[in-house]
Amino acid sequence: MDQRPLDALNKAKGKPVYLVLKNGREITGTLQALDIHLNMWLENAEVTFEDKKSSYGDLLVRGDSIVLASPANQ
Amino acid sequence: MDQRPLDALNKAKGKPVYLVLKNGREITGTLQALDIHLNMWLENAEVTFEDKKSSYGDLLVRGDSIVLASPANQ
Amino acid sequence: MDQRPLDALNKAKGKPVYLVLKNGREITGTLQALDIHLNMWLENAEVTFEDKKSSYGDLLVRGDSIVLASPANQ
Amino acid sequence: MDQRPLDALNKAKGKPVYLVLKNGREITGTLQALDIHLNMWLENAEVTFEDKKSSYGDLLVRGDSIVLASPANQ
Amino acid sequence: MDQRPLDALNKAKGKPVYLVLKNGREITGTLQALDIHLNMWLENAEVTFEDKKSSYGDLLVRGDSIVLASPANQ
Amino acid sequence: MDQRPLDALNKAKGKPVYLVLKNGREITGTLQALDIHLNMWLENAEVTFEDKKSSYGDLLVRGDSIVLASPANQ
Amino acid sequence: MDQRPLDALNKAKGKPVYLVLKNGREITGTLQALDIHLNMWLENAEVTFEDKKSSYGDLLVRGDSIVLASPANQ
Repeated sequence: MDQRPLDALNKAKGKPVYLVLKNGREITGTLQALDIHLNMWLENAEVTFEDKKSSYGDLLVRGDSIVLASPANQ
Repeated sequence: MDQRPLDALNKAKGKPVYLVLKNGREITGTLQALDIHLNMWLENAEVTFEDKKSSYGDLLVRGDSIVLASPANQ
Repeated sequence: MDQRPLDALNKAKGKPVYLVLKNGREITGTLQALDIHLNMWLENAEVTFEDKKSSYGDLLVRGDSIVLASPANQ
Repeated sequence: MDQRPLDALNKAKGKPVYLVLKNGREITGTLQALDIHLNMWLENAEVTFEDKKSSYGDLLVRGDSIVLASPANQ
Repeated sequence: MDQRPLDALNKAKGKPVYLVLKNGREITGTLQALDIHLNMWLENAEVTFEDKKSSYGDLLVRGDSIVLASPANQ
Repeated sequence: MDQRPLDALNKAKGKPVYLVLKNGREITGTLQALDIHLNMWLENAEVTFEDKKSSYGDLLVRGDSIVLASPANQ
Repeated sequence: MDQRPLDALNKAKGKPVYLVLKNGREITGTLQALDIHLNMWLENAEVTFEDKKSSYGDLLVRGDSIVLASPANQ
């Protein structure tokens, strides 16, 4: 296993990412930091939940809430 | 991974934070302490749950209940 | 991270605390002991669940059931 | 943290305890053994679940099912 | 804590046990093996779930599904 | 504890097994590999879920989804 | 246990895989990376959830969300 999934995601640092959480929340933001638990620190994040949007200058997302993570600007 | 998400949040110490918990609770308060499990100690905390607000001089929030955490005064 | 959340709660030892559990149970009692898993040993505890109250001379609360913990006499 | 919650419960060994489990089961029995995961071995246990009672000469209760544990004969 | 709950259960090896699982399944069978995660290997097991019975010559039960375990022939 | 449950299951390698998962899925297939987390690699697997059957030449089943596992050809 | 389930899946690297997640999501994509937690990095991934399809150039899938994983081109 020469490459690791989290290293691949880590290359998106400084770039926009799109997250899907366990409870259905969807989040976009610029990935600033990532740890081995998949905790993430986002800048200019927008959270969409049940058709309601909230914006955050900085946002920590707990890793064990995350199901999917994708570089957003593809 | 030169910066860690929890270090980034830790810079909010002494400042207001906004938390979203797994069961929908929303919490604001001044971040006093944070550990690697994301357990937090807040001062002057206000918990909103199902349209009911409760206030606490000091409050420990268990880390594994937390989904989102953001510095609140942005 | 010079102070830890559990150390802050530990200062409430010998004093009343108020707990909220994952299933909605609310508990008050005098904090006698606390470990790193957030397991607690309470004296003169009262558990409120679905409008029913139960009293216990001594009570162990399992840490992973706890969402919030606050010194109660503020 | 000079005293630990599980040590406090361990003093109830040989005596009756009352347990509340995550799914609402209530259990009484004589505490015979306890480990750090809060697994317990009870003698003469009675389990109440949805108004149905079952009796067991010996019973192992898995620790991660337990929410509350109290010495019963107070 | 001079005796451990799992050691107590382990004495039922070669004898019938009765298990209750988290989802309500009830299982009887002869305990052949047990590990520290409470994984069990049963012989001549019968699983009852929603009024349906299934029989197995050999059956592994994952430990984290188990709530209660009792020697059955008391 | 001279024999371990997973070693017992491991003897079914190369033979058909029957699995029950947490969400009700039932799986049959030939056990090719097994690890300590109970992750399994099956050949010629058939998954039954809500009366729908799907077939897979090779299938990895995540261990923490598994409740029951039995050698199928008894 | 001479072969491990994750090593078997790892041989699908560079090839299409099909995943089933805990919440019912189904995912296809080309497996680029895999770690011991079953976190996966997919290329050209398509996620199907409640009859809605979404496409991603690159996608990280958190391992503890995964129930089943199969090489897709069999």
